[in-house]
Amino acid sequence: MRTDGRKPDQLRPVNVTLGVNKYAEGSVLIEVGDTRVVCTATVEERVPPFMKGQGKGWITAEYAMLPRATQTRNQRESAKGKLSGRTMEIQRLIGRALRSVVDLQALGERTITLDCDVLQADGGTRTTSITGSFLALALAVDKLSGTASFPRYPITDYLASVSVGIVGEEPVLDLHYEEDSKAKVDMNVVMTGSGKFVEVQGTGEESPFSRSELDAMLGLAERGILQLVELQKQTLGELCRRIGEVSP
Amino acid sequence: MRTDGRKPDQLRPVNVTLGVNKYAEGSVLIEVGDTRVVCTATVEERVPPFMKGQGKGWITAEYAMLPRATQTRNQRESAKGKLSGRTMEIQRLIGRALRSVVDLQALGERTITLDCDVLQADGGTRTTSITGSFLALALAVDKLSGTASFPRYPITDYLASVSVGIVGEEPVLDLHYEEDSKAKVDMNVVMTGSGKFVEVQGTGEESPFSRSELDAMLGLAERGILQLVELQKQTLGELCRRIGEVSP
Amino acid sequence: MRTDGRKPDQLRPVNVTLGVNKYAEGSVLIEVGDTRVVCTATVEERVPPFMKGQGKGWITAEYAMLPRATQTRNQRESAKGKLSGRTMEIQRLIGRALRSVVDLQALGERTITLDCDVLQADGGTRTTSITGSFLALALAVDKLSGTASFPRYPITDYLASVSVGIVGEEPVLDLHYEEDSKAKVDMNVVMTGSGKFVEVQGTGEESPFSRSELDAMLGLAERGILQLVELQKQTLGELCRRIGEVSP
Amino acid sequence: MRTDGRKPDQLRPVNVTLGVNKYAEGSVLIEVGDTRVVCTATVEERVPPFMKGQGKGWITAEYAMLPRATQTRNQRESAKGKLSGRTMEIQRLIGRALRSVVDLQALGERTITLDCDVLQADGGTRTTSITGSFLALALAVDKLSGTASFPRYPITDYLASVSVGIVGEEPVLDLHYEEDSKAKVDMNVVMTGSGKFVEVQGTGEESPFSRSELDAMLGLAERGILQLVELQKQTLGELCRRIGEVSP
Amino acid sequence: MRTDGRKPDQLRPVNVTLGVNKYAEGSVLIEVGDTRVVCTATVEERVPPFMKGQGKGWITAEYAMLPRATQTRNQRESAKGKLSGRTMEIQRLIGRALRSVVDLQALGERTITLDCDVLQADGGTRTTSITGSFLALALAVDKLSGTASFPRYPITDYLASVSVGIVGEEPVLDLHYEEDSKAKVDMNVVMTGSGKFVEVQGTGEESPFSRSELDAMLGLAERGILQLVELQKQTLGELCRRIGEVSP
Amino acid sequence: MRTDGRKPDQLRPVNVTLGVNKYAEGSVLIEVGDTRVVCTATVEERVPPFMKGQGKGWITAEYAMLPRATQTRNQRESAKGKLSGRTMEIQRLIGRALRSVVDLQALGERTITLDCDVLQADGGTRTTSITGSFLALALAVDKLSGTASFPRYPITDYLASVSVGIVGEEPVLDLHYEEDSKAKVDMNVVMTGSGKFVEVQGTGEESPFSRSELDAMLGLAERGILQLVELQKQTLGELCRRIGEVSP
Repeated sequence: MRTDGRKPDQLRPVNVTLGVNKYAEGSVLIEVGDTRVVCTATVEERVPPFMKGQGKGWITAEYAMLPRATQTRNQRESAKGKLSGRTMEIQRLIGRALRSVVDLQALGERTITLDCDVLQADGGTRTTSITGSFLALALAVDKLSGTASFPRYPITDYLASVSVGIVGEEPVLDLHYEEDSKAKVDMNVVMTGSGKFVEVQGTGEESPFSRSELDAMLGLAERGILQLVELQKQTLGELCRRIGEVSP
Repeated sequence: MRTDGRKPDQLRPVNVTLGVNKYAEGSVLIEVGDTRVVCTATVEERVPPFMKGQGKGWITAEYAMLPRATQTRNQRESAKGKLSGRTMEIQRLIGRALRSVVDLQALGERTITLDCDVLQADGGTRTTSITGSFLALALAVDKLSGTASFPRYPITDYLASVSVGIVGEEPVLDLHYEEDSKAKVDMNVVMTGSGKFVEVQGTGEESPFSRSELDAMLGLAERGILQLVELQKQTLGELCRRIGEVSP
Repeated sequence: MRTDGRKPDQLRPVNVTLGVNKYAEGSVLIEVGDTRVVCTATVEERVPPFMKGQGKGWITAEYAMLPRATQTRNQRESAKGKLSGRTMEIQRLIGRALRSVVDLQALGERTITLDCDVLQADGGTRTTSITGSFLALALAVDKLSGTASFPRYPITDYLASVSVGIVGEEPVLDLHYEEDSKAKVDMNVVMTGSGKFVEVQGTGEESPFSRSELDAMLGLAERGILQLVELQKQTLGELCRRIGEVSP
Repeated sequence: MRTDGRKPDQLRPVNVTLGVNKYAEGSVLIEVGDTRVVCTATVEERVPPFMKGQGKGWITAEYAMLPRATQTRNQRESAKGKLSGRTMEIQRLIGRALRSVVDLQALGERTITLDCDVLQADGGTRTTSITGSFLALALAVDKLSGTASFPRYPITDYLASVSVGIVGEEPVLDLHYEEDSKAKVDMNVVMTGSGKFVEVQGTGEESPFSRSELDAMLGLAERGILQLVELQKQTLGELCRRIGEVSP
Repeated sequence: MRTDGRKPDQLRPVNVTLGVNKYAEGSVLIEVGDTRVVCTATVEERVPPFMKGQGKGWITAEYAMLPRATQTRNQRESAKGKLSGRTMEIQRLIGRALRSVVDLQALGERTITLDCDVLQADGGTRTTSITGSFLALALAVDKLSGTASFPRYPITDYLASVSVGIVGEEPVLDLHYEEDSKAKVDMNVVMTGSGKFVEVQGTGEESPFSRSELDAMLGLAERGILQLVELQKQTLGELCRRIGEVSP
Repeated sequence: MRTDGRKPDQLRPVNVTLGVNKYAEGSVLIEVGDTRVVCTATVEERVPPFMKGQGKGWITAEYAMLPRATQTRNQRESAKGKLSGRTMEIQRLIGRALRSVVDLQALGERTITLDCDVLQADGGTRTTSITGSFLALALAVDKLSGTASFPRYPITDYLASVSVGIVGEEPVLDLHYEEDSKAKVDMNVVMTGSGKFVEVQGTGEESPFSRSELDAMLGLAERGILQLVELQKQTLGELCRRIGEVSP
């Protein structure tokens, strides 16, 4: 039994609100337990310099926490004048993960920027950002498909993410902050709707882990992610029936 | 008649939700029309170096907009590596305004930081931040008064803020973004619950203004601010009956 | 009676020297009491990126204090690596104020940059910078009119600025540093030669102020500014007889 | 057959030179194929502020590439004025990995900093840095053990790292740059001498990967790392017979 | 004959005004031809961290040019966010030069900062800054000697500086900007009142120079510096009769 | 007799290894005593903005020390976010020195960047960087001359550099760190193969120096540099027989 009463393989309650921003091409408020993230997708008809002239699009992400998203207040990175290594690592991860399910050729020469702003943090902010960003991206592509004509639908699969870890001796799914801070091993997994791995990032700084522990965590992650993908499908409904109609 | 159907002296609908953040000592989501700001108040038992050893407290504020709070996406100031002049100007204004209704001596050697994060911007983000921050501050002081004993209640008066301006030839109250961008004169006013001015900032870059125009704008601002203060009183209810019990 | 023997509505002695820099298109040393500012105007035949292709010009300002302009030495902002909020606020104010009396269309696609460098500070550095910058600007436009042909003269009115405040219970004009540091209310006013307001910035952080106090301060400011404009006219003499020949 | 004639499960030639710097407490030049990294270990008798007073030590790492370590010259991060996300990610990884085999309590209140400077890069610079840093760390701890008395030997196990990936359809070990740039999946693995995982970081941005592909890569990594650990043992010889004498 | 009519070994007219700043412990406006520099000396009763506890003082310098000190406007280094290499080189030179004639032990644990701000530049700004800073330093030490008691007078000798160069084929003294920009060799020399070298910095980027050319330039420099020292003595008069009373 | 047994006019042992980097157009490891510097030359077919359209090339240099090149570890300048004054001064010196022996017109519109990275520092890192950079430059130009056709060979002379100083009362050549730190006078000299001065930088912060001391140091420097040039010729052999075939 976990401190919040969940079973080891049980996700926290997930809640999604679409369209929370009147300007963004796609926007979502995603709540996983007490972790709350606003994800917006912005479409711009240009690509970064290193992508110019290739006829391809680009997906990128930025991530930040409000100063009081956490128990004690964090100084703003804008005031510090630079991004922390943690922030850079997370936003690189989110961008990379989303690009794995987008056909950049089909997208055409445009950039979609996913902004993930954490209003409240209780563990799993990076994985929640990925799961939510996928929805914002899908909304933006759907809106775009009203005006742009794609050679084929640019989203090739669903994408969601969850954390797993070993707390005490037990592998558990979807750690909240208190569990996370005492976990021996911490792993973030990103998978597609068809069950393939996009990112596996496990770290045993406190305690190296065996192959069988790794296997147990991967199993939990797969189980959790498939539930999140199911929820994404229900949330998007008719809207995004074309996702994955062409395999990448 | 204004583009959104309001009369010249009419505020936009105002909505306030208290306690939107589980960690902060005080938190508020304030919505004025389509402008939406989260204000959190953080209490820390220390003061900045320049205040040390004076037995007094400090109130400071920080302000930011999410990248897609506006029609087109703005680059994050954390990514740019520095705060814009506009941001600094606004956060200095918010801090100064709130300090005007706090008895820093009564507060004791602690700092309250007001974080104003604009989720969606449709004009009046700085005035909305002030009106909302006052509520977050009141909640934090109320919570603090459960554990700290003040020599006297440190909040000396209510405080709210509104924008006024001249659009076409007409003075109007509480401009939304579209009005703001075509206004000849733009003025932000901060007042206390007892009807005194804390800040008057009027600028006629597009068109200098006469004394009678100034008077008309001040009149509208006073009217709007008293309504906002009324709303603050209703929102706080019993909670903050001690505000202003001792005049500063 | 004030500490330097002035009456409440009396300006400090003002002294202006034109042409103090052999390279600048316009330059002025302005002394208001012990406050001493060098203002230079630089004309460049280009506009910032956001103004390109509009056939209009741009006026901008920068402001700095020498490290020992003040009683104790201030660290250079170049050494700190960033501008303070105060500096940004002031240079935004100066630029905005000057733009209010320039017909940017008539100026054509060029930028005039006003550099205000405070050699010695004794209160009122921002208002002195505005009054002096107007003169440097007028000299630069006059020089430019020898080579460029404007569709109409681009300066539409005189412009000057002064501070007012409430010291003790008394409204006073043109505060020196010692008064400024103990004032309850501090207000900077910028007006045109024809008596219209361009900027009104009053702040009562120490003590909110009533409408009648505001009115008294505005009256003092108007009186002081008209004297400063008179002095500008005498200083410029024949040179700038075309200022305001066409109303904006 | 791979472009450099290796079999899929074959490491590149590895060469290690100990003691390449006369000042550092530990230093190593490690060459893995054409990748060349200098690792130095610096011991300082203090810990970072967040560690003070806990009676524990700290291990941290920094990573950089010389500008011409790569085919085209990279701008120095010192000239750009900030570290890239890639650099931060790598140095966080190296530090975390090494901490996993150090008993910080046994180390006492001192910091060991591992500097990894890449002289020439041909793939696998981060994994080579970890394998080399372990040796520099071991030398430094050995030297330190001559003067400091540890309650128990602070290094608890060997540590090495290697990259694996899927090139074409084939899982391969220890990718050089050319392979790396066309790999569909790229994974870095860090393991201890006793065969436990410390870090697993796999990314399939180009192409998500199946569980069986993941298993194949983990197998290759394990095989390669055990060879690297064997080489570490031979290199250190008598010097470090105490490593792992007490399990963590 | 030079373009301004001077002979090869002739200085430009030098003009010095003492006490130009009412706050600084020492201040000077020095004009050498059209080059104009304000030098202020600030005394602070503390030393930088690396000097603490040694019972010695410190002398440091900062240098800047106003944006329009030159023919075309230069961007402020405060706006760029960093000091240029040229600025750092110059201020390191000024500080080093002045320290050579100060007995830091005699000065006691205090710092004197020399700020050199160039109002107008026409060649030789760094050498003019050194000659002027010496005077500001002497004024500050003189003022200080009224309140502090030194074990011995801390200034051990006079100090002045001048530039020399080779223009065309001719060695010349004290180059103005136009000469400087076409000089083949450029050299700055700092000497004490007793004729010893403190700094010799010659550079022949455009054209390497022979030993006899070097000798000729050193001769000119010595001649010019002794005249500048003579002028310093006349300017300071009775004020600083103790300079060099004890040799270092 | 010096602490390392050398005579006053004796260089430390010098060792040069060519071609230490497989990517760079020219590369050298130069060792002067225990000072060890890697110099690489990178050729790029473009020039910096301020050189565009002049049909001329550019030579520039960058300099850095590995953190543990010195007895105690130095913080990386990339982590500090800015270059120190010392670094800027040195890299400006290296670039300037090398440009003095390159015919930029003959080079054509391309840039050669010399990167000098100090692996281990024991005095004389800037002079060693210059001597080594000349070799890397020569290798790069030689390689380039295989593909580019120059109107004439762009290297006009050999170039080397050495430090001299006064330790105790004695002028000595090529100071190692221990001597350098107690020297009264420190001078760096750069000369061409034909015995002309390119840079003379002497500083007597600790103790001003006489003309005869200066002469003695210049004599030692000339003697040392001619030996270094001889060594450069032997090292390059046939490779660079065209150096200086046309005088500048």
